Amino acid sequence: MPYYIGDVIKDPNSLIARTPEKFEETGIRVELGTCVEGIETDKGEVLLAGGRRLPYDMLVVGTGAKATLPDIPGTTQDGVFTLKNLRDGINIKEYIRGNMCRRAVIVGAGFIAMEMSEALRNLGLETSVVYRGELPVKKWDPVFSGMVLEEIANNGVSFIAHNSPVAVEKGSDARLSLVTDKEIIETDIIIFALGVRPDASLALGAGLATGESGAIRVDSSQRTSREEIFAVGDCCESYHRVSKKWVNIPLGDIANKQGRVAGRNIAGYPMIFPGIVGAQSFKVFGLEVAMTGLDEKEAQESGYSPAGRIIWGNPVARSMSGGQKLGLKLIADKGSGKLLGAQAVGQSGAVSRINILSACLWSGMRLDEIGYMDFAYSPPFGGAWDVIHTAAQILEKEL
Amino acid sequence: MPYYIGDVIKDPNSLIARTPEKFEETGIRVELGTCVEGIETDKGEVLLAGGRRLPYDMLVVGTGAKATLPDIPGTTQDGVFTLKNLRDGINIKEYIRGNMCRRAVIVGAGFIAMEMSEALRNLGLETSVVYRGELPVKKWDPVFSGMVLEEIANNGVSFIAHNSPVAVEKGSDARLSLVTDKEIIETDIIIFALGVRPDASLALGAGLATGESGAIRVDSSQRTSREEIFAVGDCCESYHRVSKKWVNIPLGDIANKQGRVAGRNIAGYPMIFPGIVGAQSFKVFGLEVAMTGLDEKEAQESGYSPAGRIIWGNPVARSMSGGQKLGLKLIADKGSGKLLGAQAVGQSGAVSRINILSACLWSGMRLDEIGYMDFAYSPPFGGAWDVIHTAAQILEKEL
Repeated sequence: MPYYIGDVIKDPNSLIARTPEKFEETGIRVELGTCVEGIETDKGEVLLAGGRRLPYDMLVVGTGAKATLPDIPGTTQDGVFTLKNLRDGINIKEYIRGNMCRRAVIVGAGFIAMEMSEALRNLGLETSVVYRGELPVKKWDPVFSGMVLEEIANNGVSFIAHNSPVAVEKGSDARLSLVTDKEIIETDIIIFALGVRPDASLALGAGLATGESGAIRVDSSQRTSREEIFAVGDCCESYHRVSKKWVNIPLGDIANKQGRVAGRNIAGYPMIFPGIVGAQSFKVFGLEVAMTGLDEKEAQESGYSPAGRIIWGNPVARSMSGGQKLGLKLIADKGSGKLLGAQAVGQSGAVSRINILSACLWSGMRLDEIGYMDFAYSPPFGGAWDVIHTAAQILEKEL
Repeated sequence: MPYYIGDVIKDPNSLIARTPEKFEETGIRVELGTCVEGIETDKGEVLLAGGRRLPYDMLVVGTGAKATLPDIPGTTQDGVFTLKNLRDGINIKEYIRGNMCRRAVIVGAGFIAMEMSEALRNLGLETSVVYRGELPVKKWDPVFSGMVLEEIANNGVSFIAHNSPVAVEKGSDARLSLVTDKEIIETDIIIFALGVRPDASLALGAGLATGESGAIRVDSSQRTSREEIFAVGDCCESYHRVSKKWVNIPLGDIANKQGRVAGRNIAGYPMIFPGIVGAQSFKVFGLEVAMTGLDEKEAQESGYSPAGRIIWGNPVARSMSGGQKLGLKLIADKGSGKLLGAQAVGQSGAVSRINILSACLWSGMRLDEIGYMDFAYSPPFGGAWDVIHTAAQILEKEL
């Protein structure tokens, strides 16, 4: 009988919408609020808090990721949050409402930080993003990061660069203060959005192998180093089809696919997870921001000889674009002409381009092919030459 | 010296935005209002109206396509139009304004007819579409054609099915009347939107080979059956990468690419046009309608064993879609599992899916790969499982 033990340490509510009873109807037993303390692989048993044991023939580890909290004093105070799951989101909203918060500080400037800044502005809070670096979303080209910075600034978010938090203290005129190496920032709520790390502690305790990324090592069937134990989602690695490396990219769509693959393999319908190309996106206020594949640095580290170029185009035919601009950066290998990665930013049309280019990466297409690909051209949806064509042709000439 | 002779018989104004002088600055001589009456391949001369001759070393034929007019009486009257080029569009607008037209009839129900029906409604005209068949845009699945019909009906266009025009006559209470095999429809303006045929007359006169499609036969360098004569655009054929046949699909983006390829080959930078996958789209009122690849019938005729399936999904994550539905039909080969074609209709997200699937067709991807492809997932732009994933997985099971 399939048996699900909720990931209770971090998130008793991730299944909020579906009660255990709903699952039982389908023959799956669900136990929430139950902490797994160990896996005893020699006995084939899971050790639960309180000493209870649960035998298994096949086991799936889906322990996810942990939000990073900096090692500074004061982070356990009321009003300090990380954002990893639905419960965190509910807690943050309740805290803001219950304490009539007026000012918020987000520490970190990745895409979760950007999304949070929009959500907090929409709730009417004065919002600051505190970051140790110069520009937000540093995975993107500085030109694009600059556009993201402009977008949040235009929407009233203040970006405090070059500041590293050193402590959280009680505030004087607000509830809290974030002390950085440069300033003291008074605020009612602090959200640490410093990224996540794979939670492989249970797996490590059971002797399962982890990879360089710190996440659980799996094969293309989602099997760990033990044949009867599978791992899926943010806690495990994925094969990156462009870098040819096993990486940990904690994203919901990847987790969904891996879960399906593990399930099929366990149920006796063998299936391979074909890997990822690193496609991701976020929306911040009026901007679409997306990327896929590798950036120049990752490409270099993967043995390629990359060249990159930003091209500006229009999301739809120029005559209909109302002045909207779309920035597209392509990265390709000088030797083979193969596309290695792409980044795009614009008010619209960025994600749709990155998805097309993800399909191109998937099958290893070269720039010369991409420059003449056939799209569903119509002026409301693009130009006769799409920005993808132009970007591929120009970069190809420069290789 | 490059020499351009305007396609003057049909369109003295297609270069409206760029004067001959502008071209001369770049070293290209442009002659508008000049009719080419023949190509004398043995002498390497183009014969102009009035007896003038122009020698060439290399010649590019870009004679485009002709709009189809039915062979019925009365079509030469004032107020009867076809729509092929910018001049036609200007003439139609001027006629409507100058004659204070209130009622319009469009004959035909392809995608130009649909776009015209929106344009005429936007000008405030009572608009009818007269069609011999049952549903508009018959290249799409009847379910999707039905959605298009509903969309134009909801926007006040009346669709008169099962009517074939037999004559255009003077009207009694309006300027004109369209007589069909069933009714007499009074109207101020009639637009025949019955599609186009490649204009290969000049090429045929010069003894150039044409293909089964009636368009000029070319190779992948855009060379015709004579080495020194190239053809590009609506007048010539293109290699269809899915059907593996040479076809005539008259679309502006294909013409642009072929022009570039011919130019490079003439200039001594050899290049191959890699062909098309048949991607196309149009917008009609609030609906995006798109397709790529082959439909079941074309697939069968191309030697495949096709299966097709429509799936309904959301353009963005369900929680954010506001009830918007997106219909996606995939067509795949039972033997190989390869994707052969796709069609999509929805208020948004149809074209972006078809472009991704065009990239999949381009490289010959199978459904099992498409079902687990990596996209730039974020709820404002799609679900963790996109409708593409779902459609590919479901159709794969049914193959």
